[in-house]
Parts: sequence; structure tokens; C-alpha cells
Amino acid sequence: MKVKVIVTLKNGVLDPQGKAIQQTLNGMGFVDVKDVRQGKYFDIEVNETDENKAKFKIDEMCKKLLANLVIEDYKIL
Amino acid sequence: MKVKVIVTLKNGVLDPQGKAIQQTLNGMGFVDVKDVRQGKYFDIEVNETDENKAKFKIDEMCKKLLANLVIEDYKIL
Repeated sequence: MKVKVIVTLKNGVLDPQGKAIQQTLNGMGFVDVKDVRQGKYFDIEVNETDENKAKFKIDEMCKKLLANLVIEDYKIL
Repeated sequence: MKVKVIVTLKNGVLDPQGKAIQQTLNGMGFVDVKDVRQGKYFDIEVNETDENKAKFKIDEMCKKLLANLVIEDYKIL
């Protein structure tokens, strides 16, 4: 089955990339854009049909590789 | 309001970064991982209370800056 994961910076962690995107959007005429935060998205295909087991494994992967828990949060969709 | 956007590579477009993550996960013992595709995630705060208007603007932004429509798809959540 396929599992989707979103990894985002924790609140309070500076996001210069998101800031650059926001400023570019403002400069392009999208003046209503107040803030942009960029994160990562993963589409993971696991050889596992049980949803709970798959999500449990993905959770392990997030903790060990996909997210840096010091500065990032992750969400399994 | 806050709008979330996911930008992913179109099917068929090579994703070496995703492949590297998959191989690393396999090497770490997660042998059930068949495929990983990496994408981008944006949290955009727009100064607009009407949901439809906000999403319309975000759609414009995706087409003009956030996604490269030749190789990427986007989804507004």
C-alpha cells in the first residue's frame, strides 16, 4: 500500500526558503501572501497490506531517517 | 487563511532523490519499501477569508511559480 508523509519545520524554526518564496510571490503581484513555509512530502510504497502495520513501519522510518525531530515535525496521512 | 499545497513529480518522471531514499531505507532494514517519490509541500498564509478566492489565487501561484507543469503536478488541500 501507499502511504503519504509530510515533514514540516517546527514552529519557530527559521525557514529562509519559505521566506524567499513569499517575497518572490509578493514581487509577482500576489501581495496577499503573508507567509510561506516549505516542507517535504513523501509517497512511500510499502509491501504490506495491513494499514496499521504499514503506518507503524513508516513511523519508524520517519523517526530514523525522513525527519530530523530536533527541528521538524512529521505527519502520516 | 492557511492553504496547503503538495507538488509532486508526474508519473514517469525519474526521481533519483526518491530512489536514494528508498535504497537507504532498504539498507537500514526496511526491506518492505518498494518505492519512494519525493515532493514538495507548502503552507501558504493568504490575507483572504473567502476559501474559494484564496484557492483561486493559490492555483495561480502554483501555475506561475510553485510547480513546473512540464514535469510536476500540484494539489491544493
